[in-house]
Amino acid sequence: PANNKNDSGPILYGYAQITGGQQWGTSTNGSPTGPNGWIVGANRIRLGVKGQAVPGVTYNIEAGWDNAALSGISGNPSTPKGNLLNNGLGNNGNASIINAWMNYAPVPFAQLKVGKFKLPVGNEYVSKAGNTLPFVFRSMAQSLLPGRSLGAMIHADDVMGTGASYAVGFADDTSLDPYNAYYSGNNAAYYTGGGQGGFLNGSGNYIAFARLGYDFMGPLLKAEVSGSRMSLGAVPSAGLSKTAVYTWNAGIHGGLMGVHYAASYTNMTSGRSFGVGGYSNKGMLATDWNVGLGVNLHQMTLTPSWLDIEPAVRFDSFSINDHNGYDVKIDNTTVGLNYFVNPNNPHAAEVQLNYIIPTARQGNFGAGTMGGVFGANDAPINGAAYNTLMLQFQAGF
Amino acid sequence: PANNKNDSGPILYGYAQITGGQQWGTSTNGSPTGPNGWIVGANRIRLGVKGQAVPGVTYNIEAGWDNAALSGISGNPSTPKGNLLNNGLGNNGNASIINAWMNYAPVPFAQLKVGKFKLPVGNEYVSKAGNTLPFVFRSMAQSLLPGRSLGAMIHADDVMGTGASYAVGFADDTSLDPYNAYYSGNNAAYYTGGGQGGFLNGSGNYIAFARLGYDFMGPLLKAEVSGSRMSLGAVPSAGLSKTAVYTWNAGIHGGLMGVHYAASYTNMTSGRSFGVGGYSNKGMLATDWNVGLGVNLHQMTLTPSWLDIEPAVRFDSFSINDHNGYDVKIDNTTVGLNYFVNPNNPHAAEVQLNYIIPTARQGNFGAGTMGGVFGANDAPINGAAYNTLMLQFQAGF
Amino acid sequence: PANNKNDSGPILYGYAQITGGQQWGTSTNGSPTGPNGWIVGANRIRLGVKGQAVPGVTYNIEAGWDNAALSGISGNPSTPKGNLLNNGLGNNGNASIINAWMNYAPVPFAQLKVGKFKLPVGNEYVSKAGNTLPFVFRSMAQSLLPGRSLGAMIHADDVMGTGASYAVGFADDTSLDPYNAYYSGNNAAYYTGGGQGGFLNGSGNYIAFARLGYDFMGPLLKAEVSGSRMSLGAVPSAGLSKTAVYTWNAGIHGGLMGVHYAASYTNMTSGRSFGVGGYSNKGMLATDWNVGLGVNLHQMTLTPSWLDIEPAVRFDSFSINDHNGYDVKIDNTTVGLNYFVNPNNPHAAEVQLNYIIPTARQGNFGAGTMGGVFGANDAPINGAAYNTLMLQFQAGF
Repeated sequence: PANNKNDSGPILYGYAQITGGQQWGTSTNGSPTGPNGWIVGANRIRLGVKGQAVPGVTYNIEAGWDNAALSGISGNPSTPKGNLLNNGLGNNGNASIINAWMNYAPVPFAQLKVGKFKLPVGNEYVSKAGNTLPFVFRSMAQSLLPGRSLGAMIHADDVMGTGASYAVGFADDTSLDPYNAYYSGNNAAYYTGGGQGGFLNGSGNYIAFARLGYDFMGPLLKAEVSGSRMSLGAVPSAGLSKTAVYTWNAGIHGGLMGVHYAASYTNMTSGRSFGVGGYSNKGMLATDWNVGLGVNLHQMTLTPSWLDIEPAVRFDSFSINDHNGYDVKIDNTTVGLNYFVNPNNPHAAEVQLNYIIPTARQGNFGAGTMGGVFGANDAPINGAAYNTLMLQFQAGF
Repeated sequence: PANNKNDSGPILYGYAQITGGQQWGTSTNGSPTGPNGWIVGANRIRLGVKGQAVPGVTYNIEAGWDNAALSGISGNPSTPKGNLLNNGLGNNGNASIINAWMNYAPVPFAQLKVGKFKLPVGNEYVSKAGNTLPFVFRSMAQSLLPGRSLGAMIHADDVMGTGASYAVGFADDTSLDPYNAYYSGNNAAYYTGGGQGGFLNGSGNYIAFARLGYDFMGPLLKAEVSGSRMSLGAVPSAGLSKTAVYTWNAGIHGGLMGVHYAASYTNMTSGRSFGVGGYSNKGMLATDWNVGLGVNLHQMTLTPSWLDIEPAVRFDSFSINDHNGYDVKIDNTTVGLNYFVNPNNPHAAEVQLNYIIPTARQGNFGAGTMGGVFGANDAPINGAAYNTLMLQFQAGF
Repeated sequence: PANNKNDSGPILYGYAQITGGQQWGTSTNGSPTGPNGWIVGANRIRLGVKGQAVPGVTYNIEAGWDNAALSGISGNPSTPKGNLLNNGLGNNGNASIINAWMNYAPVPFAQLKVGKFKLPVGNEYVSKAGNTLPFVFRSMAQSLLPGRSLGAMIHADDVMGTGASYAVGFADDTSLDPYNAYYSGNNAAYYTGGGQGGFLNGSGNYIAFARLGYDFMGPLLKAEVSGSRMSLGAVPSAGLSKTAVYTWNAGIHGGLMGVHYAASYTNMTSGRSFGVGGYSNKGMLATDWNVGLGVNLHQMTLTPSWLDIEPAVRFDSFSINDHNGYDVKIDNTTVGLNYFVNPNNPHAAEVQLNYIIPTARQGNFGAGTMGGVFGANDAPINGAAYNTLMLQFQAGF
């Protein structure tokens, strides 16, 4: 019931993704290849409650223990490195509230949503829940998006039956999801409050965001454009000029009779004061484009009725240039096969097999750690610098 | 169903409070006023389960992610400062079990409650759940109360139909809620166990507490007195004399036909060994008194039937003298307006607007940080040192 | 419903155990006895969801806040010491997902279980859920078992109606439960990944495990043998030889007409490279054997029908020899009395009184801290080095 917005009671929903992985060719800049073997983790574990508080007011509170099993134990070496198997959440392996919002709908075409939620910038990142993804990983574009923050927006779907949707709003001046460009830990800018420690007072800086969508041909072609801007304060590093981070995204997705696809282009630019630890640079430009295709053989009636399998393939290209000499590009080609145990409830029990090939790797990617978004030696979140096999089991309710 | 004690199944209950704040006049001892702006956080997020285990035995397990959205992310600057937007809980932004108790009622007039629960000292703090408060913040008296600890008590409501209620019990020698005088992190005293690290053995020191209540005129006038005493061990700072912390509270609350009120006086005194970090002082005296009034215009049939609004006002005065020259006082006057979306289920969906004015601020309050209870430059928990506007959205089930 | 595997919906289940303890004779190697007194904590708090995702696929996601009330607060002195009142879990007092698995049963006699679960090695540890234990603590054998890890196994109960059961599988090269011999923090071995920080790549080392069980006489006599082997990598301490840890266990349990018993022998051996912090030793041998007996007077109709009490006694003997001169032994004799409030639903509301006597204590046990498994001065998990009284209240659903 996680995706059914018509439920009215306090609905308990959730799912778990148990993921095994193995890599090959893990040589780093000419060093010997390290050992290989399977390792198992929990990609996503989610438990939430949602429902209608009173007519016109709905709520959703969702907890996530992302990769809890590997990094949730004190003393485990993986703890200080965060949560790298999955989508950048995790709170050091502890439970965190990843969504907590309420929605007021006095009229359907102008609804108010307040709380912590995914800011509506991006394509697959916004339109696909974590348990409905055709691939184990999202695209690398996630690191260029603002992710989740605390704020408010006015929004509506299918305004007046026209097929158009919109959202516009403001949020606090940081992402609450690590491993993206809007996260305060990854740049020199942060909201700076006065008064009582800043907790009851903001800096006057915000993330502004907007999104427009349109259904051109029902389910066959949905298109959306979205963008965001976050102010970069002059503090904490004196001497930095006050500029901003900008992201825009254009995407399409849709499907018919067992074939479904998604394609998206994302562009992130920043002004001079952007950088970690007061790093004074000339700003950055990072882009991602990706296109994915899935073919459900069961919906095409090419398999026996009890066998629901879906081959899928995605090409994802990420590049970044910081105007200071750091200019790299990584392409990931992912080949996948999805098996749905019960065709009538496909995401309730699902097995996904993915093989990721870094078909291009130019620059300094993959020289050791995976974590950061913009570090000189890293792959961005969701990116693989080596040939990687993943097998994921999912069960949900 | 959070407040209905007659449910028998495992009832899932919870609510979320999303709170925006802004302050003005945040000059600190003559320094320039800092920047101003809105900032959004989660005041309280609560999810719990309660019910009847077998006839005569009830339970309640409640998790809280207080202010999880702001401080729940690793690397967020707010993490080390704790959880200041709300009522002093939070476990560094991680989930914590704020209540976990079971109640044995062999006879209604002598029930045994064991576990972690709010020790029954205080007025509004004990009698009002977090989702039924007429103001966004509780009164500053919270910092003088023992809060929650682990222990046991004998208690009953409406003993033999007389309208009298009582509770008496013991708990471990520390509060488990930060930001009050009984919390081990805020004073030199702490239980000192022997044996296997102290986890299976106590120090012989406890918090003792008692409460008496009486309904004078049904809902119109309820009065209660309560008090607590916590031993202060001689350790960990050698040379401190072994004394105690005492709190007593007297309060009344009630209402009729849309008007409701509460008034309370709280007094906390301590002996010589009280203080942070082995601070050898002469003991302390701290007091709080407050009076609040709400007028529900809908219940008074002064509004259209679909409009349920309630103006409210509270005066709260807090003072502290440590007998060592630190003698300060802060008054907060709060003006509020509550809007209940559905008059028949008022706390399921609610919007609260509060404006807090520090009508008196004598001494060293507000000189920088908000955190501590007794620090020289701080406001106590729930207190605002600057003009503060807060807007809170609440949804629950 | 926590133990009913036939439920099909998303079933919410859980329980809480509130435990008071006091010790006597806490002298440490001749030092004066420390103070004594009651201290209260939460032994186990569990909340989970389980059910059937689609026909043939079941899931179970369970969160634990073990000892959350005592160590879940920032600044509490108990935090860095972990979670010693209970069974070694706890994640520093924060919530952790202690179980997250899904089970695929295409045929009943060959089922696939993947995720985080208790590896099926041990006797009471595997066959008794935490809310059905006849004593407050499990036996000390827990420190010799692999506990929980992330992996996969093939298993079945009552294969083809023969009364035989089996399980065989592999898991990551560390236990995820602290305080046992397989936990990475307690030995020099750990999986060493290559590639992107090791999170998508294993070391090629695993825990292998197997179990066989047989019901000889229905409920009267069930016997099982089980074992596990974990590779010890040559890293992180250079110079260590690559060997392994082995555990095997043989146990029986059963009962009839109010009498129930369990008996078990556990043997753990390790090769040279085993030890904390690169400690180069000659390997270890540790064993535990224990036998427990409970007599339910209510089921024997020796009590009035409303009174369900059960005396119980257990003898538990643990010894360890590290072949380097550290050779110690501790015996714990536990006398208990269990009271079930409702005989028809005994574990829904239960009170347990235990008195633990360290009837033998040879070597260096009990010289200060309780934490580690193999430290020179410690008692293993679940062991008491001093006379200990415990009173535990339990409620569940």
